[in-house]
Amino acid sequence: MSTAETATPSATADRVGHSGGRKDAAPKIRGRAQFAGDINVPRMVHGKVLRAEFPHARIVSIDTSAAERMPGVVAVLVGPELTGFDPYWGHAIKDRPILALDRVRFRGEPVAAVAAEDEATAEAALREIVVEYEELPVLGTVAEAIADDAPLVHDGELRPGLFHGLGKLPEREGNVCYRYRLDAGSVELAEAEGELTVEGEYEFPAVYQYAMETHTVVADFGDGEITLWASCQHPFLVRAEIADLFNLPLGRVRVIVPYLGGGFGSKSYTKMEPITAALSWKAGRPVRIQNGVEESMVTTRRHGMRCRMRTTADRDGKLLSRSVRLWLDTGAYADNGPRVCATAGDAAPGPYRWEAVHVAASCVYSNTAPAGSYRAFGAVHMQWIGEMQIDELARRAGIDPLEIRRRNLLRPGEPVRPDGSGKPLDADLVGDVEKAAAAVGWGEPKREWAGRGLSVGLLAAGAHPVSNASVRMEADGGVEVNVGTTEMGQGARTVMAQIAAEELAIEIDRVTVQGADTRFTPYDRSTGASRSTTLAGLAVQRAAADLRERLLETAAGAWGADRPELEIVDGVVHGPGHEAGYPELIAERFGFAGGELVGQGEVRPEQGSGSYAEGPVFWEICIAAAEVVVDPETGRVGVERMATIADVGKAINPLLVERQDEGAVLQGVGNALFEEMVYKDGYLTNDNLLDYRVPRIEDMPAQMTGIIVENGDGPGPYGAKGCGEGAQAATPAAIATALADAGVPMNQLPFTPERVWRRIQELR
Amino acid sequence: MSTAETATPSATADRVGHSGGRKDAAPKIRGRAQFAGDINVPRMVHGKVLRAEFPHARIVSIDTSAAERMPGVVAVLVGPELTGFDPYWGHAIKDRPILALDRVRFRGEPVAAVAAEDEATAEAALREIVVEYEELPVLGTVAEAIADDAPLVHDGELRPGLFHGLGKLPEREGNVCYRYRLDAGSVELAEAEGELTVEGEYEFPAVYQYAMETHTVVADFGDGEITLWASCQHPFLVRAEIADLFNLPLGRVRVIVPYLGGGFGSKSYTKMEPITAALSWKAGRPVRIQNGVEESMVTTRRHGMRCRMRTTADRDGKLLSRSVRLWLDTGAYADNGPRVCATAGDAAPGPYRWEAVHVAASCVYSNTAPAGSYRAFGAVHMQWIGEMQIDELARRAGIDPLEIRRRNLLRPGEPVRPDGSGKPLDADLVGDVEKAAAAVGWGEPKREWAGRGLSVGLLAAGAHPVSNASVRMEADGGVEVNVGTTEMGQGARTVMAQIAAEELAIEIDRVTVQGADTRFTPYDRSTGASRSTTLAGLAVQRAAADLRERLLETAAGAWGADRPELEIVDGVVHGPGHEAGYPELIAERFGFAGGELVGQGEVRPEQGSGSYAEGPVFWEICIAAAEVVVDPETGRVGVERMATIADVGKAINPLLVERQDEGAVLQGVGNALFEEMVYKDGYLTNDNLLDYRVPRIEDMPAQMTGIIVENGDGPGPYGAKGCGEGAQAATPAAIATALADAGVPMNQLPFTPERVWRRIQELR
Repeated sequence: MSTAETATPSATADRVGHSGGRKDAAPKIRGRAQFAGDINVPRMVHGKVLRAEFPHARIVSIDTSAAERMPGVVAVLVGPELTGFDPYWGHAIKDRPILALDRVRFRGEPVAAVAAEDEATAEAALREIVVEYEELPVLGTVAEAIADDAPLVHDGELRPGLFHGLGKLPEREGNVCYRYRLDAGSVELAEAEGELTVEGEYEFPAVYQYAMETHTVVADFGDGEITLWASCQHPFLVRAEIADLFNLPLGRVRVIVPYLGGGFGSKSYTKMEPITAALSWKAGRPVRIQNGVEESMVTTRRHGMRCRMRTTADRDGKLLSRSVRLWLDTGAYADNGPRVCATAGDAAPGPYRWEAVHVAASCVYSNTAPAGSYRAFGAVHMQWIGEMQIDELARRAGIDPLEIRRRNLLRPGEPVRPDGSGKPLDADLVGDVEKAAAAVGWGEPKREWAGRGLSVGLLAAGAHPVSNASVRMEADGGVEVNVGTTEMGQGARTVMAQIAAEELAIEIDRVTVQGADTRFTPYDRSTGASRSTTLAGLAVQRAAADLRERLLETAAGAWGADRPELEIVDGVVHGPGHEAGYPELIAERFGFAGGELVGQGEVRPEQGSGSYAEGPVFWEICIAAAEVVVDPETGRVGVERMATIADVGKAINPLLVERQDEGAVLQGVGNALFEEMVYKDGYLTNDNLLDYRVPRIEDMPAQMTGIIVENGDGPGPYGAKGCGEGAQAATPAAIATALADAGVPMNQLPFTPERVWRRIQELR
Repeated sequence: MSTAETATPSATADRVGHSGGRKDAAPKIRGRAQFAGDINVPRMVHGKVLRAEFPHARIVSIDTSAAERMPGVVAVLVGPELTGFDPYWGHAIKDRPILALDRVRFRGEPVAAVAAEDEATAEAALREIVVEYEELPVLGTVAEAIADDAPLVHDGELRPGLFHGLGKLPEREGNVCYRYRLDAGSVELAEAEGELTVEGEYEFPAVYQYAMETHTVVADFGDGEITLWASCQHPFLVRAEIADLFNLPLGRVRVIVPYLGGGFGSKSYTKMEPITAALSWKAGRPVRIQNGVEESMVTTRRHGMRCRMRTTADRDGKLLSRSVRLWLDTGAYADNGPRVCATAGDAAPGPYRWEAVHVAASCVYSNTAPAGSYRAFGAVHMQWIGEMQIDELARRAGIDPLEIRRRNLLRPGEPVRPDGSGKPLDADLVGDVEKAAAAVGWGEPKREWAGRGLSVGLLAAGAHPVSNASVRMEADGGVEVNVGTTEMGQGARTVMAQIAAEELAIEIDRVTVQGADTRFTPYDRSTGASRSTTLAGLAVQRAAADLRERLLETAAGAWGADRPELEIVDGVVHGPGHEAGYPELIAERFGFAGGELVGQGEVRPEQGSGSYAEGPVFWEICIAAAEVVVDPETGRVGVERMATIADVGKAINPLLVERQDEGAVLQGVGNALFEEMVYKDGYLTNDNLLDYRVPRIEDMPAQMTGIIVENGDGPGPYGAKGCGEGAQAATPAAIATALADAGVPMNQLPFTPERVWRRIQELR
């Protein structure tokens, strides 16, 4: 299913560049892998959350007395009890109470929480809590929320959270909680010069980041200390936010992350941790809260978007300008909305050379569930729109869509951001898109109602370049990698083990990689933004190299040798007249009592503060090509062929790269063809997996080609850069351009049969 | 109660040299400190051990069928099931089966183990196990064990354990499992030259290291992995031994040590861990085994000893030679017997200048419970004997006991070992003993039946110089010390926190010190041999200094300053035109996303392998003076005044030094006056705390003076060296010499009223 462009010969089959040794396979297959829901702590009780019945309402009263009297109920908690500290949290904007205080702002907002000896009792107690509401006007859509007379979802000043990271919060402007603006050149002048212009208005739906494991937290709020076992992607950021929220030193909050049953961004930052910790505080006992799917669907989602875009070119298809206005619906609380908004803004111009660009993006509060991160956020919102406009310009200019891209795509070294800021391009986009096009039969004859499409984009990736790791070698030569990356199915532990094995020239079987425990694991910013291999992997590489230096230093000292005389082959150090395995060297260093060697690796901003404003750590490549066939009678869109490019610099584990792209395509197909959270006046009408349609394996493209490109041009270990999100951004865009090529240009996702059929009728 | 010789002025009251900030006080007082017995693991079952009824017997058959059928019983394990690996363990000699295989060698030896849903069921199931024994001849004493025709307790060759560390195992010689021999000069010639000779035969009883917490282990033997929560002093050595026993890599065994409720050597090395792990393997579930006191009393104890000693001096009291023959009863299994034997051999000459010395020591198997480590082992055995002979020579030469010591005690820089090997003396023994003498009114008039005594000794301390530590500073400036030292009441966590606070010039409140978890905690050889402050403390000092360097490097880089221009005052770095607290510097280094700095510290042998044979890391000073009064009617000995010298180089925490010496005196008084495990033909007749008399608070000396001497002459941080064992070695010796001075020289410990009364009758 894949074509590896390069191959790295290696003596062992499971070091860097090979696909063996998957670390999480055995524990998962044998059922011994622990997830947060498997955690059981002595005296633990079970928590359930009472959620708001209305999308927007004042809380008149809450009567918990009947629930409190129920046998087996240990504690009932309501928001107004949480005094003594600022009860608002939110990593970008501190806008969210742990439990609703005076009003509820979305249907499903936590209003009260019950801890009981068992789940059934907790559930039953919820039904005994009487809440009197006074309904308030509902802002169900962005259009309603940005109307001049719209009421404010949040009164008063917005306060930045610990990880806002996007500079000073802008002035309040109605329900807009964040604005992004980019201006380069004069769009007015460029448009006057232009001969071809495409303009349109587009809609992107809210979707759910369906992970098999729902949000789950066990919290133990003890004597000025909190321990959390949490299904979270960002243990260190959760630690910081919980410490900030409950006024504790960082060292008094411990976050332990077992295996994660899928994340995709839904478990980034803080989610159910504050409420679970607060309930443990009230109960005086450890508490577990495990969401149902319908609860996780109102815990986080992808932003819905409205967008107006206009793109201008000259008669030869030379791109001149792009102007974009977009609004993201972030729901009742900001969550990661500001960052999604900024990333969408960064992605809006697409990877092209422009004379002028204008982007204005707004992140808007409404009375729907909060929206946050989901794989390829921002990029997936914009790429299908921008690429459809490029194709339309090609069509009008009479140029092949591949050719217009050849002429206009950025070349390596050119600035990506039209204003010249941030990291320049370090990838061969033209070469990449040509490979993708070839894989779907570009230029070959097509059947009727079939179309082929290309999509090229860039995604600001890496989040923030702070990762630490340590690599410890035991006296028997066994190696433990301590790194904060969360294994959520993407194979992070395997890749980290491969990197350590490569640096130390040992078998991957000798390497163990554990989950994060913030008490001991070195600090890592987060697992997301395609950053783990690139940044945490680089920290692991440095730590392993540091350990290797200590081994060589030991050998040099013992043998009276100079360092350049020493070399390592398959875990054995060779020097003049000597050779020794690692265990012998550790024994040499420490004597008979045992000992260990530890290497440390640190990754931090090389210059500046590494803030988002300074640009991403790297640009993730989002390239795909698709061939689709439409059934004009039913409107059903079938994806016949799909090719994705994993332009990863270096594939540490090619099979894992392929699997990442396959998963991204699957979720991209869902986003393109099936998925949509349907809100009506603030009520989510399909909050379950029967009515909310995720793609199934039979919805996958009939032929899928995952192409790995290894140009060694990434900032990570061995020239690697991240992957796994690009293909998701590229998939709906490739399907959209292919569908337009088949004769059905669409301006609203998902391309459901009904919507496609109606569009066909319109066009007839 | 103490006199500090030096004082270190410090801006803060809780850094090095001060007595505040005890780290374990709050969690212990609030009941939140966790001990191994507090650990509860999901699916955990309770284990109980069936112990041998006879001191020596062949096992004819074991019928566990009735026990297995009992409801609630999860598993029943017997020794012969443990196939597939070598079932013998023992850190010095691999002589011990996990459960008895063919025969039992002491009464109380584990024969079978039961895991059940609750303790009562497990207990009841033990009574359903039918064991048929065939009794064998019992070696109840050393005399019986070394008789020419004695049967062998162990057939076949003895195999060294992982931590034998005393060179090649000697040839087998009957039931002797280890022999120590020291010859310096010709004793024959020296004795011929000598005019005064003292000779005697002495007995030292087996005693129990009574710790309030009994041996407790929770073991979870999973999928090729073992996790142990254990009441153990040496987590890393237990890990190594369990890994070796069950054929696992070191990284697959995890030992977690919560707080320890007293150790004193009883929890050194491996004790109940193998049997608990094996029972978990059989049960397929986590298992807890918690000993009763009567079980811990047959798990380990101090060695009983017989000794013949002859000391010769010239007419002026100049010491000429000493000849020593001693036999230690190590019971049915070696445990730490070889090391105790070697340490007794090292201590036998005492801290004096000799023309010739001969020491021959044997460690002997018998059919009693295994003997291992207990505070001041070896030294406490020998010092009272050697010092009584010195006093007797003084008496015969007509010299004051203080004066004979002034003339003969080693001076700083002189070799301690009569053969010149190992570390020379680095303490002012004469100065020390003069201080102790003064504190008990030396030279003042005495009442009838009162006596004053001095004792001076040296204890080979430090075990093995391998300790690692890391010190982590969080983004908020909080500091976590990771070091493998076990907090067992001695205040180790406090001292480690003080050292880190001193190096970083911060308040101790900002420093957290956790217990060991071998998965994450840096390797530390062990907690014992008075080594923690000296060696683990040195590792912590180095780690904190390494962290400090990283902070300074960050400031230098940010400010463009040279390092010598920077200084730290109370947690703030000052440089030309700048100053910044640590959190600001961490933010400077990593940007807004957070981060951390980690310093590492390593202590390893500076030369050689650091083996025992090369000599101790340092000589611990064992000096005390006592004033006793004997009631001739009852034989009761009362200790009126007691002075101990804590010659610690530097007292990191003076109050903790005092408390260590107070505890050591209490246990020394017990050893001198009350404690004795009474064996009859291999049966321990007082295996409970009613019949086995430990000292109570009213048995403490009426006046106690703890003198701290700080000459900065230790190898540890700030010139520190270990303490806490010396006073225990010195206490029985000071009481013995005082009792002799009162007219009742004794040659058998303890000096119980009956024994003293009989001696008085003999002497009349």
